[in-house]
Amino acid sequence: MKRTFVKERITVELQNPILIEGLPGLGMVGRIATRYLTKQLKAKKLAKLYSPHFPYYVLVNKKGGVRLLHGNFLFSKGLAGGRDLIFLTGDRQAQTIEGQYDIAGAILDFAEKYHVKLIVTIGGYRKEPKEAPKVVAVSTDSQVLNRALEANAMASPSGNPIVGTAGLLLGLARFRNINALCLLGETRGYMPDPNAAKSVLQVLQRMLGFKVDLTRLDEEIEESKRIVERMHQIEKQRESYAQEARRTEEERITYIS
Amino acid sequence: MKRTFVKERITVELQNPILIEGLPGLGMVGRIATRYLTKQLKAKKLAKLYSPHFPYYVLVNKKGGVRLLHGNFLFSKGLAGGRDLIFLTGDRQAQTIEGQYDIAGAILDFAEKYHVKLIVTIGGYRKEPKEAPKVVAVSTDSQVLNRALEANAMASPSGNPIVGTAGLLLGLARFRNINALCLLGETRGYMPDPNAAKSVLQVLQRMLGFKVDLTRLDEEIEESKRIVERMHQIEKQRESYAQEARRTEEERITYIS
Amino acid sequence: MKRTFVKERITVELQNPILIEGLPGLGMVGRIATRYLTKQLKAKKLAKLYSPHFPYYVLVNKKGGVRLLHGNFLFSKGLAGGRDLIFLTGDRQAQTIEGQYDIAGAILDFAEKYHVKLIVTIGGYRKEPKEAPKVVAVSTDSQVLNRALEANAMASPSGNPIVGTAGLLLGLARFRNINALCLLGETRGYMPDPNAAKSVLQVLQRMLGFKVDLTRLDEEIEESKRIVERMHQIEKQRESYAQEARRTEEERITYIS
Amino acid sequence: MKRTFVKERITVELQNPILIEGLPGLGMVGRIATRYLTKQLKAKKLAKLYSPHFPYYVLVNKKGGVRLLHGNFLFSKGLAGGRDLIFLTGDRQAQTIEGQYDIAGAILDFAEKYHVKLIVTIGGYRKEPKEAPKVVAVSTDSQVLNRALEANAMASPSGNPIVGTAGLLLGLARFRNINALCLLGETRGYMPDPNAAKSVLQVLQRMLGFKVDLTRLDEEIEESKRIVERMHQIEKQRESYAQEARRTEEERITYIS
Repeated sequence: MKRTFVKERITVELQNPILIEGLPGLGMVGRIATRYLTKQLKAKKLAKLYSPHFPYYVLVNKKGGVRLLHGNFLFSKGLAGGRDLIFLTGDRQAQTIEGQYDIAGAILDFAEKYHVKLIVTIGGYRKEPKEAPKVVAVSTDSQVLNRALEANAMASPSGNPIVGTAGLLLGLARFRNINALCLLGETRGYMPDPNAAKSVLQVLQRMLGFKVDLTRLDEEIEESKRIVERMHQIEKQRESYAQEARRTEEERITYIS
Repeated sequence: MKRTFVKERITVELQNPILIEGLPGLGMVGRIATRYLTKQLKAKKLAKLYSPHFPYYVLVNKKGGVRLLHGNFLFSKGLAGGRDLIFLTGDRQAQTIEGQYDIAGAILDFAEKYHVKLIVTIGGYRKEPKEAPKVVAVSTDSQVLNRALEANAMASPSGNPIVGTAGLLLGLARFRNINALCLLGETRGYMPDPNAAKSVLQVLQRMLGFKVDLTRLDEEIEESKRIVERMHQIEKQRESYAQEARRTEEERITYIS
Repeated sequence: MKRTFVKERITVELQNPILIEGLPGLGMVGRIATRYLTKQLKAKKLAKLYSPHFPYYVLVNKKGGVRLLHGNFLFSKGLAGGRDLIFLTGDRQAQTIEGQYDIAGAILDFAEKYHVKLIVTIGGYRKEPKEAPKVVAVSTDSQVLNRALEANAMASPSGNPIVGTAGLLLGLARFRNINALCLLGETRGYMPDPNAAKSVLQVLQRMLGFKVDLTRLDEEIEESKRIVERMHQIEKQRESYAQEARRTEEERITYIS
Repeated sequence: MKRTFVKERITVELQNPILIEGLPGLGMVGRIATRYLTKQLKAKKLAKLYSPHFPYYVLVNKKGGVRLLHGNFLFSKGLAGGRDLIFLTGDRQAQTIEGQYDIAGAILDFAEKYHVKLIVTIGGYRKEPKEAPKVVAVSTDSQVLNRALEANAMASPSGNPIVGTAGLLLGLARFRNINALCLLGETRGYMPDPNAAKSVLQVLQRMLGFKVDLTRLDEEIEESKRIVERMHQIEKQRESYAQEARRTEEERITYIS
């Protein structure tokens, strides 16, 4: 494999579709949100994106087979006010600079083929959330941005970087005359964060006027909280062991002096 | 040299051949197993694979000449139940992401040329083996997988990565309508492990219905055990010296206080 | 995006234009100097340079939109003794070796299109300046070099490297029959240095015979001095805290012995 | 610049020329030896090799100009038993794997153009030399190897790697039906080593039957010895200061206990 390519599974007619992208990134916010949507909406497989810029390993799947790392395009019809949805999620992002630009270009080629006029990219931004994680919005188009702000997203301070595919798609979309919006959920970022994903989905639903049941995401959030608490306990214990060890060491030093 | 290419030495007619790949990797399991097979079966040279993605050095050979790092295709006729075997082993794997995909593609081009319908890749996975090293199998095809499991391989837990050429060949084989199986021997991985290679060869023999003498591999295993023991002794000695040094240091500190 | 490309905004007629390049680098000297010139001269936008060799993020702009990292070509007419000026500044330099050569080549393609016969690149070189920062000049052409030396620049010792676009443009200019001059301002280099930029601008003005008001740059210099002083104070304080902490530690050790 | 290319200065007729390559590497042995030869033989400039795989900086030259990093082809007529010589030396080697293969390929293209039938590459190998540094030879051709061994070179143990252009040219030469020999001088390798270069030149002279005055190289060797001695003294002094500092620290600790 020498080039990034998209292998289409089927060809469908889609009404004025919106592309929602959520590849793995900070706190896995984009991937969790997009995958949750595809499951709740029973989205159907559309195409796969393969690339020599993904890491060079394969993953064992449930049936003892393997799969090449790839991006997954899915679709769901008749939801967002008469508009259809295309989703893109996947295993990993590109590993090189040139690969990142190349894959973003291949995604936009595919979007153009389906006459996509709006792309929504989802990601996380690092911040200790106080209550419910906030959602920041930036867009290539002021009207689209306003709709996001009306749906409870916040404006981003100027100068901030948006790293990876979620950012590049916005930067490159203008060359294709496609509008793009990026929604970033507040996250500590050091582990998968379904809570940030939920905040993003709430903004997205309000904006696009559809409704999916978020109950199952709440279960993931509870599970995630339990893991964080357990990690904190282990950390505390480790710390208290370390103190104990230091005390013993000090006593030993006292003794030998 | 700008591109990966295969330089063919001869052209042969091969009956429904199986390609067995074992490039250097964890514990050198694939390389040891594949090279052992080619020696026991007196396999003949078929072709060499050169690539600008291999490391940029050459190796001095026995006659005071040098050889470019490369992959080696060999073949052996009339063994596996009327099917012939092609082997691929070599010096190193590609050093870049894009190189890994490129070389895996070149291997599959060559396999297609010989109408290969089954590829077996061999590698190691890191685990402290308790008794005889176990062998894990994954495959693009459930029938092939079953044959490996019947031959005493274990199924792999889902989600595990298979890194490098052994994995990529499986991931990319489906684009060529080639079935592929990966056999991974349990290994500590920090030095060449003929024991893991033996376990893999036992599975492979049962599966493909041929028999090679493994006595010489047993000699390598004994030699390898001796090296490991010597390393452990050196490590112990080093540790006891270090303790002695710390004690002396402590006494010195006691003295100066 | 697979290739570096220049997207032209307008086409203008320029009289024997000089290209002045100042991309981010050591002490941001080139970028500060070039941007200051474009603002004072109210330079107009000419073209943008995009490349898959820039880092793979976008930056949020003031209106809540984003922009892809890029280079900015601007122009200003009727200033340098009947000659027009083209400016190139931008967000970042290329991130890979091959990218650096590629982008320098694209800049020279653009320069050729406008029949540029002289390129001036601006950067910094690391040295603790004693009074006003000195400016070092090197050039592909001895006459151009002499004009810079007469304008108060110093000759560079031989053997010094000039890293990045500022250097490569000089190295590659000869293949296009373009003369090039590099002006490097003395800078500590660890933070944006408007003072070094001012020294370079003074040389440039004398050389090319134009005059811009440098008052606003003086304000930046004052602000920069305040920041440096504040950093020194913080550093001193940190140091005195650290001493205090060590003393406390020592007392504790004394106590336990 | 997107590709490696050779810019020819003149075209000459050369009699069955031998290409002698010495790019910078371990101990700078190849570069020192080759440059010394070109100076003693008053070799003339033939061509330059430019590449986007060299580091992305330029070097200031004596006249206040700059030069792009490049390789230098020179030639000398009527020396080696009726055969002419082509030399290749330069500033640096390629910085990436693919760049190394690419540049080696470009060198061989140029060699083919001049119908070169023998290439001699020069480098260093790391070893503490006891008396005069030894020279190791490897070759693609057993007759050429024998001539080197008769000229006082030693055979190399099998399995050793030869890194970089000096090695790759040997590995790739066979695809062009060119014989190649690599001469490696024993060197500590941590600084330019004219002594190792001298040993290589002595072998080369005996082999090819020409004679150059090595007196000036002896001066470089003396200078190099003085530098090494000075470095040893500085190192000793640094060590004795460090011991003093440790003693003071210990006394302080003694005091506070």
